[in-house]
Amino acid sequence: MPLTPDQIAEIEDQRATPQPTLRAVSEGMEAHLYKAHEVLDHGFVRVIDYMGNDAAICQAARVSYGKGTKSVQNDAGLIRYLMRHWHSTPFEMCEIKLHVKLPVFVARQWIRHRTANVNEYSARYSILDREFYTPAPEHVNAQSVVNNQGRGAVLEGEEAARVLETLKGDANRAYDNYEAMISDEGQAGLARELARMNLPTSIYTQWYWKVDLHNLFHFLRLRADHHAQYEIRVYADAICKVVADWVPAAYGAFEDYRMGGENMSATAMECVRRMLKGEDVTQENSGMSAGEWREFEGVLKG
Amino acid sequence: MPLTPDQIAEIEDQRATPQPTLRAVSEGMEAHLYKAHEVLDHGFVRVIDYMGNDAAICQAARVSYGKGTKSVQNDAGLIRYLMRHWHSTPFEMCEIKLHVKLPVFVARQWIRHRTANVNEYSARYSILDREFYTPAPEHVNAQSVVNNQGRGAVLEGEEAARVLETLKGDANRAYDNYEAMISDEGQAGLARELARMNLPTSIYTQWYWKVDLHNLFHFLRLRADHHAQYEIRVYADAICKVVADWVPAAYGAFEDYRMGGENMSATAMECVRRMLKGEDVTQENSGMSAGEWREFEGVLKG
Amino acid sequence: MPLTPDQIAEIEDQRATPQPTLRAVSEGMEAHLYKAHEVLDHGFVRVIDYMGNDAAICQAARVSYGKGTKSVQNDAGLIRYLMRHWHSTPFEMCEIKLHVKLPVFVARQWIRHRTANVNEYSARYSILDREFYTPAPEHVNAQSVVNNQGRGAVLEGEEAARVLETLKGDANRAYDNYEAMISDEGQAGLARELARMNLPTSIYTQWYWKVDLHNLFHFLRLRADHHAQYEIRVYADAICKVVADWVPAAYGAFEDYRMGGENMSATAMECVRRMLKGEDVTQENSGMSAGEWREFEGVLKG
Amino acid sequence: MPLTPDQIAEIEDQRATPQPTLRAVSEGMEAHLYKAHEVLDHGFVRVIDYMGNDAAICQAARVSYGKGTKSVQNDAGLIRYLMRHWHSTPFEMCEIKLHVKLPVFVARQWIRHRTANVNEYSARYSILDREFYTPAPEHVNAQSVVNNQGRGAVLEGEEAARVLETLKGDANRAYDNYEAMISDEGQAGLARELARMNLPTSIYTQWYWKVDLHNLFHFLRLRADHHAQYEIRVYADAICKVVADWVPAAYGAFEDYRMGGENMSATAMECVRRMLKGEDVTQENSGMSAGEWREFEGVLKG
Repeated sequence: MPLTPDQIAEIEDQRATPQPTLRAVSEGMEAHLYKAHEVLDHGFVRVIDYMGNDAAICQAARVSYGKGTKSVQNDAGLIRYLMRHWHSTPFEMCEIKLHVKLPVFVARQWIRHRTANVNEYSARYSILDREFYTPAPEHVNAQSVVNNQGRGAVLEGEEAARVLETLKGDANRAYDNYEAMISDEGQAGLARELARMNLPTSIYTQWYWKVDLHNLFHFLRLRADHHAQYEIRVYADAICKVVADWVPAAYGAFEDYRMGGENMSATAMECVRRMLKGEDVTQENSGMSAGEWREFEGVLKG
Repeated sequence: MPLTPDQIAEIEDQRATPQPTLRAVSEGMEAHLYKAHEVLDHGFVRVIDYMGNDAAICQAARVSYGKGTKSVQNDAGLIRYLMRHWHSTPFEMCEIKLHVKLPVFVARQWIRHRTANVNEYSARYSILDREFYTPAPEHVNAQSVVNNQGRGAVLEGEEAARVLETLKGDANRAYDNYEAMISDEGQAGLARELARMNLPTSIYTQWYWKVDLHNLFHFLRLRADHHAQYEIRVYADAICKVVADWVPAAYGAFEDYRMGGENMSATAMECVRRMLKGEDVTQENSGMSAGEWREFEGVLKG
Repeated sequence: MPLTPDQIAEIEDQRATPQPTLRAVSEGMEAHLYKAHEVLDHGFVRVIDYMGNDAAICQAARVSYGKGTKSVQNDAGLIRYLMRHWHSTPFEMCEIKLHVKLPVFVARQWIRHRTANVNEYSARYSILDREFYTPAPEHVNAQSVVNNQGRGAVLEGEEAARVLETLKGDANRAYDNYEAMISDEGQAGLARELARMNLPTSIYTQWYWKVDLHNLFHFLRLRADHHAQYEIRVYADAICKVVADWVPAAYGAFEDYRMGGENMSATAMECVRRMLKGEDVTQENSGMSAGEWREFEGVLKG
Repeated sequence: MPLTPDQIAEIEDQRATPQPTLRAVSEGMEAHLYKAHEVLDHGFVRVIDYMGNDAAICQAARVSYGKGTKSVQNDAGLIRYLMRHWHSTPFEMCEIKLHVKLPVFVARQWIRHRTANVNEYSARYSILDREFYTPAPEHVNAQSVVNNQGRGAVLEGEEAARVLETLKGDANRAYDNYEAMISDEGQAGLARELARMNLPTSIYTQWYWKVDLHNLFHFLRLRADHHAQYEIRVYADAICKVVADWVPAAYGAFEDYRMGGENMSATAMECVRRMLKGEDVTQENSGMSAGEWREFEGVLKG
């Protein structure tokens, strides 16, 4: 469990006293505020704040003086239209702020999404905790033999045991030495900004991350995708659940047009058209490479 | 007055029913929500939503589990420290959404600030209103003779009257013809996306504009500055008042370090040091050009 | 013709003297440098500078020490793979700088693409030229009756003539008065930053616009699309031709996967799958709204 | 030395054959192209490409048809004016692409600058080399006792030796185990995307990093500053030297106004004014906190 009793008390304290506001409220999101959704062995995602809801998307799209919302059904239709026609700015009018605890190697992938605001826990200023990611046995996989940047089958038996032991052993030794180097007992004590470089990227860090809904959808499409590394995908999955409660209409449109949708090339569309006319289309006459054709077949199978 | 009775009613409706929230609240900002602060002859600035407050800046800077705030005094000190040392990310953790009505030529300057989200009223989709900016007589100035991109003395007498008459006459004629061209009475009616190009940039447009506090401060520093054109400066001034009520500690630090502060070159600092030692520093021995020296003297006078 | 003899001479001067460089060169692009590609009645697009070529995309993707390119065929395959799997960063490694002359109402759409660098001609500092966009008769259309933000049939006869006369007349009168107001003969002369607001948005402005290839592709996909207003689409089309000569492999992949490709929703893909199994899918049993179904049928027709 | 003979050969190959170009050329930069400037024990900075030069900054500021440059002196004056008055867009018209090899903990600070393009070597796809940063003895410091996020005195004697031994020992053990886990001899071999998390953040990574001059200056001001961690400062210093050769006028202005300049608060300026009038200003009557006053005194001393 990632939280200490003190931290739990702080969170409960924040949930204890609602205050009146005139702002747009999302009831689904109020239920999530501050709570820690556990991810991996020591990580979490917590909603710290949010701005807007489904109605706010429509209000901005209509540049309206009042609520800008008509009926819920009408709003959902507008949101689907906006998503279908790549109108990104109304979705940018919603914003979310998360507190995330995550392994450093996951943080390194995550930060590549630049259109967001981040405050990370400083290992120059503070001492890191002894918390490292150790995969559950069912997530310790071999290198994929078909995909150079993916995983293959789950490791089994002695090899799996050896891997887990190695990861734990090295992480703990590195942390023991980190502590020993920064200690000021009987020595000066190494600067924290230097000592931290002894720690493996399986160590947990944490940050506040703030992003607008449009850019969050972009993040989720790439990181909740099955090509993404498992360890970041579980964070994306946890965020998806939160977003579905926050802006149900927008999330529904996102699921249909982006997450579950397919980007078909001109070549692929031409093949679909020929197939619908009854033509027998094969890789050889498709105009696609072997790799593209394999992906195309996968898409048609669904 | 820029609002119709219907619009006023919509705004009052939005202010009528506070709802409970667990989010950070700024009481100073709740008082502003939805209200129109009038700017120029038909424009306004309205706060539609906000995220965060002074405490949220500290909470993010400390990456904390709870409120992250210690005492109000302690927080103000941290905020000043962050501002002084150019820590921009904690300020990015606050966000504001405004509804702004403004002349097109002002909108064209404003949009140059790219790190913001915008939804503008569409003149392809909708018909623009007959509302043009006409400067008040005390803001009708001659071209500056010292600054190629500024204003000089206020125009007087017949010339001033002629200018105002011209601006009003041309705007109204352009709008009459805009209406005549898009009318579908007895004709097909020109497409709105074409007809709009007949309108001068004094016409009012409106948009929803959302920005984080760090980037808003950057905007305000440049646009509330006396070098900025008067017509955008009055918008920046109106926003400054709102921000001072929203995040008083951050705004105070901004006023001291940015708005009222000075960026001194290495050369200028060296001159200050020599002056403090009692040396007689002149433009000739300062290492500055005539223009820089003039600005430097202005800064020392305050 | 949008250029004066002096301007033509300056351009020829810039094309006169090649210099040696060790940087990546695109021969297709060298042929375009500085030349004005005419767009609309007074506008143009000119390439001022570029960084990178197809090989540079691969070099960055491979983070290589040398050229990073293998064979042209191998590179093209890698580029297609990157485009298909939404790897955007290698495309960001190419950059283009354009000088564009365009009507203000087009500039206002263009600037909404924020991930780019812009220096616009300053109407606070300088006097604008008497150049306004007047559509060719075949581009003077009625408001669309099916699409609220589009054009319908071409206007004919007297109505068309009246529109063109109105546009020209109002533009010229506005410019005459602009000149009269800023004149310092026998009067102080109105500040340019004020006088310009009398001018309609059909007036031409110009800017330097710099963007990376990934963001340029995004711009082109939206603005070379048939939903875009004709007057910006012709600029996008002109840029497409330049890009095809600059990075032929990347442009080819862009055409196949983005420009000519289709984004199919999960619902639409499910319909395709059912159709391929021989099922009779109609709007009623498709799960799509009438509007979506109409678009879907259009996509299947190609 | 960070480069293998093969890599050196690839670099020499790229420098061997200049090609003609019509683009703006910076001779100072041509001399740097592709060469590795060594940083730390295994790192480097290499210029891969650049766009623009001092003249291009002026050309964009003037939105000119030709070279846009007048005299070198005139250009330098314009550049100083632009820098002094915070005109950022002309500097954005220059672009640089670097290949950087750097420790992961440095990369994690670096990437916080979001307005840049990055392609990093993928440890999901490829195997990392056995190269770790080990500080030179004179850069192994104790934690600062005055600054929570800085270094104090250099460590000496046994403690220093112990630290270096620990860092080397842990890094090598972690790498041995990394190799053992991914090996497919006699076992399946752990996926690279998992095995990498055993490696400490002292390991070297590399990336292509592309940024415009305005944002590069911002990076350099923060990272070449004495508050920055030594290990990133040496990269910033290496880049400063390159930029000084690329755009000497812009770099000179940057040094004077930003790098060597001071941002004085309104309070600090008021103190300077009082001092210049001969008043005895102390912390008590300055309006500054103890910390601010200490920094202020440092600035006045120079």
